[in-house]
Amino acid sequence: MTLSRPSLMVNTSIVQKNIQRMLDKVSRNIQFRPHFKTHQNYEVGQIYRSLGIDKITVSSVEMAEFFANDGWTDILIATPLNILQIQQIKTLSKRINLGVLISSLDTLAIFLRECPENNLDIWIEIDAGYGRTGFSWQKKEVISQCIDAIAGTLGLSRVKGILTHSGHSYLCKTKNEIEQLYWLTLDRMKAIKASITRDNWGPLISTGDTPCCSIMSSFEGNDEIRPGNFAYYDLTQESIGSCRQSDIAVAVAVPVIGIYPERQHIMVYGGGVHFSKDYLDTHSEKIYGYLVEKKIDRWDPIDRQNRLIKLSQEHGTLQASSDLIRSVSVGDILYIQPVHSCLSADLLKANTMLI
Amino acid sequence: MTLSRPSLMVNTSIVQKNIQRMLDKVSRNIQFRPHFKTHQNYEVGQIYRSLGIDKITVSSVEMAEFFANDGWTDILIATPLNILQIQQIKTLSKRINLGVLISSLDTLAIFLRECPENNLDIWIEIDAGYGRTGFSWQKKEVISQCIDAIAGTLGLSRVKGILTHSGHSYLCKTKNEIEQLYWLTLDRMKAIKASITRDNWGPLISTGDTPCCSIMSSFEGNDEIRPGNFAYYDLTQESIGSCRQSDIAVAVAVPVIGIYPERQHIMVYGGGVHFSKDYLDTHSEKIYGYLVEKKIDRWDPIDRQNRLIKLSQEHGTLQASSDLIRSVSVGDILYIQPVHSCLSADLLKANTMLI
Repeated sequence: MTLSRPSLMVNTSIVQKNIQRMLDKVSRNIQFRPHFKTHQNYEVGQIYRSLGIDKITVSSVEMAEFFANDGWTDILIATPLNILQIQQIKTLSKRINLGVLISSLDTLAIFLRECPENNLDIWIEIDAGYGRTGFSWQKKEVISQCIDAIAGTLGLSRVKGILTHSGHSYLCKTKNEIEQLYWLTLDRMKAIKASITRDNWGPLISTGDTPCCSIMSSFEGNDEIRPGNFAYYDLTQESIGSCRQSDIAVAVAVPVIGIYPERQHIMVYGGGVHFSKDYLDTHSEKIYGYLVEKKIDRWDPIDRQNRLIKLSQEHGTLQASSDLIRSVSVGDILYIQPVHSCLSADLLKANTMLI
Repeated sequence: MTLSRPSLMVNTSIVQKNIQRMLDKVSRNIQFRPHFKTHQNYEVGQIYRSLGIDKITVSSVEMAEFFANDGWTDILIATPLNILQIQQIKTLSKRINLGVLISSLDTLAIFLRECPENNLDIWIEIDAGYGRTGFSWQKKEVISQCIDAIAGTLGLSRVKGILTHSGHSYLCKTKNEIEQLYWLTLDRMKAIKASITRDNWGPLISTGDTPCCSIMSSFEGNDEIRPGNFAYYDLTQESIGSCRQSDIAVAVAVPVIGIYPERQHIMVYGGGVHFSKDYLDTHSEKIYGYLVEKKIDRWDPIDRQNRLIKLSQEHGTLQASSDLIRSVSVGDILYIQPVHSCLSADLLKANTMLI
């Protein structure tokens, strides 16, 4: 692939380091099921595979199909079961070991009615404080009711475990806050586990957002962790302390299409349809990315006054230093690290280059 | 297509009305070259074609190729020429009448050096006040220099015209502000035209963002207009007064995946990878969309307390009224009008349904 338009550049040696660092923290008794929505890429999947990973998480039925087509055989769709896709899910479950997430009694009732026979792994989603989806951690009797309903129709052994995503870790401002959130989440999950454990059966506990998994040094008490973003990281993770700039594996390559010294702007071909509109809210301006320099084995930081401050559909406005303005020409490729690598990777699925 | 996952629903009768309304304002001596980046869809292109349109605008080389493959033969790529794609552009120009945009002397020099022979239509981009790309309207001598350089190498007749995009119309708060911006832009473009017109040659003036083209009732003084968003419209356009809610042609269909009466949230399968992260900044909260009701020929408004207030990658949080909460079940499809239809259409290219 020649580099002539906005492309996601993935430094594979950083990806490998990021995965290995996480693996080193996961003890043998804990299952590592990384989230593949971050990369949605077969070659990055291959890096995981070469490190011994064989269980993965995805965020849609189509993404499960995509990775099943690349030979992955144990996939959990970690978004609330969309009952409108139940036939598609059942079809896929004939080929692979497929897990689904039950987040409400309403959905469960339809699921049990429409799938009296199925071989899906069932996970119960717990809302341990994030406030998005799942059964509230405070409603133990409802969770118990849910387990009973599944046990009655499909058998208790089909319930794999209880699962939560602590997305509110992204709102933390310090490592200490993230650590506290991790422990609080684990305590709540353990309490639920204790309340629903029965003779000869107990659920697995599955947690693991990137901020918590990056800050913690081990995960005892969990049975499974599912971080995803950590393979790439991004400016958001750096801003909350989950990673250093040197851990960010990706940058978006963008062609220079105009230079405006009078207002210190470099215009790049790279906009909202490449970066997404997620931003860092810093110094009373929106920042959509920071410029970095491409080296063989790393992305070197550059003075952060060189920042992406505006995005149209296809154009990006890079506020640039006088030095940079002098050294850049139209037709050059610049590299900009994104605010949210999952969304950039989703947008640039067809234009991703591993280096 | 069965409706089981997030999809862009396009009400074609509203699209037709929106296009016809614009066409009615375009007099015979003015060229109408609508921007196709809004829809990126062959069937919507067919609606334009059936109304007599044969010239179009796009925002990337790939989009030009996409529409050339559907039989469009007069296409303008209205983003600054990316010289890294010059071979791709030359190849495409052998099949169709292709226009490119020259926005700087640097790019022009490379273009003339690398393309001493080509049959591209050349447009000169003017920055008439937006401050994004193009030659500043104040620098008439530079624009003249640009014309001379093209005339010397390719001949003056190859310069089609001067073109501007007044993207700052999106920042206007009232119709009156938009109208003033329109006249100011046109005055500046006319002054440039006057300063560069030569014996037997004068450039066309091409303008036309959706807010200005929606507010104005005629376009005398322009030779070409290029609005795009007006075919679909969206909540942004409604908020600045370019359209009414009833003119918005699209809504994103989203399955209900959870209902949380205690916090009045309906969780939908529909997130940042479907809506984009563009938002309306109202009442100290971000709004990503408003719920509407699907009727055969229109999208009926619903109490706007029913609003999309949060987006994850795949999940959307709809703040809902008690009435709505009571009437909705998991597995229902809801319809939400987007804040920025161009970005939603880009994200949902593969899941668009015309109704």
